[in-house]
Amino acid sequence: MAILMYDLAGADEKRRFSPYCWRIHMALKHKGLPFDTRPWRFTEKDQIAASGGTTVPVLVDGERTVSDSWTIAEYLDAQYPDRPPLFGGPAGWNFARFTKHWVETILLPTQMRILAKDIHERLHAKDQEYFRASREKRFGQSLEAYTANRDQAREQFRQALTPVRRLLGEQPFVSGKAPSFPDYILFGAFQWARGTSPYLLLSHDDPVGAWRERMLDLHDGYARAFPAG
Amino acid sequence: MAILMYDLAGADEKRRFSPYCWRIHMALKHKGLPFDTRPWRFTEKDQIAASGGTTVPVLVDGERTVSDSWTIAEYLDAQYPDRPPLFGGPAGWNFARFTKHWVETILLPTQMRILAKDIHERLHAKDQEYFRASREKRFGQSLEAYTANRDQAREQFRQALTPVRRLLGEQPFVSGKAPSFPDYILFGAFQWARGTSPYLLLSHDDPVGAWRERMLDLHDGYARAFPAG
Repeated sequence: MAILMYDLAGADEKRRFSPYCWRIHMALKHKGLPFDTRPWRFTEKDQIAASGGTTVPVLVDGERTVSDSWTIAEYLDAQYPDRPPLFGGPAGWNFARFTKHWVETILLPTQMRILAKDIHERLHAKDQEYFRASREKRFGQSLEAYTANRDQAREQFRQALTPVRRLLGEQPFVSGKAPSFPDYILFGAFQWARGTSPYLLLSHDDPVGAWRERMLDLHDGYARAFPAG
Repeated sequence: MAILMYDLAGADEKRRFSPYCWRIHMALKHKGLPFDTRPWRFTEKDQIAASGGTTVPVLVDGERTVSDSWTIAEYLDAQYPDRPPLFGGPAGWNFARFTKHWVETILLPTQMRILAKDIHERLHAKDQEYFRASREKRFGQSLEAYTANRDQAREQFRQALTPVRRLLGEQPFVSGKAPSFPDYILFGAFQWARGTSPYLLLSHDDPVGAWRERMLDLHDGYARAFPAG
């Protein structure tokens, strides 16, 4: 039986945009494991109750249910050690861990100031009220006010990418000559934007954009085939 | 013959504060290699002409002269492979490379807005005019104006440290259970501040500060013995 992943979807069930789920899309392709995805909406907490949590990704692999993107990645390397590794030893694990913290504390919060309203517009009707209420409570202001200065947020986002821009000026992938989990963590941030908004994040000559194209090309253009904008 | 490192010094020749030289101080201790340092001032370009460059660190190891902190670290791992590794394989190299770019493009520029005037005050008289003229040209303003909002720069600095603060909440060193070159790169940024300024960078309960204390303790308090503030 193929692995099943519960995956955040929009009104269009083909629209998949969770930065955390995208890590696992790419991780499963990386390891060459067959899998299916099931579109899931924010308000369908009951569907993933067996995971013990309320967020996706949730992976069901035979008898096992695993949640949290980091835990899933560790599970995949432990369970399928003969497949290409996502971490590749303690130093690779450590780099991925730093990348996770960097993406989650610096990049994603800045992107939220760009994307929040566009995300809301693309959600299933049954999710929109939940999303607006929970996020406006967290932000302390309306989605419209929160994203009002998104040109400025984009400048901060581009500035925050400076270290990885330098790295990608030297080598094709964040992890070196070939992609591994740090690439998928960063790519998840870009897939969040690609799946929810037509707003142009990067300038046309940005080396980070060239890397993103390489990532979209992986596995016969797997990620590129999903709805964008 | 012991290894010799040319090392940036202040008016007090014991005051050593180059963030790049500190990477190599710690790298040499890490590898357990005996070494001497020679105090060097910005205007003594002639003393390091044999390196082909105009900046320190410069390492002289027998017949070999090596400059640039990254190149020196690679040289040490290649030349002394039986000593503890600084990088530890391609994934460790890659993490160090990202750390280098992150520190050099995000942290050091923010710290310069805190430290520039304090650095000037601690330089040897023969360096002060050179430092003021070259930096004021680069910044487009006086050292005093450049550092006028340093409380704000400190907030940016603390915010930029968020990912590493999370990592150090989980493990004792940036590199994991034991320090390696990524720790020394980050530590260099803090030694730059410690060697030039009494200004308090971190709050007292910051996990990054606890890590910095561990770094100061390494090798019988090697770094702690240098003049501070």
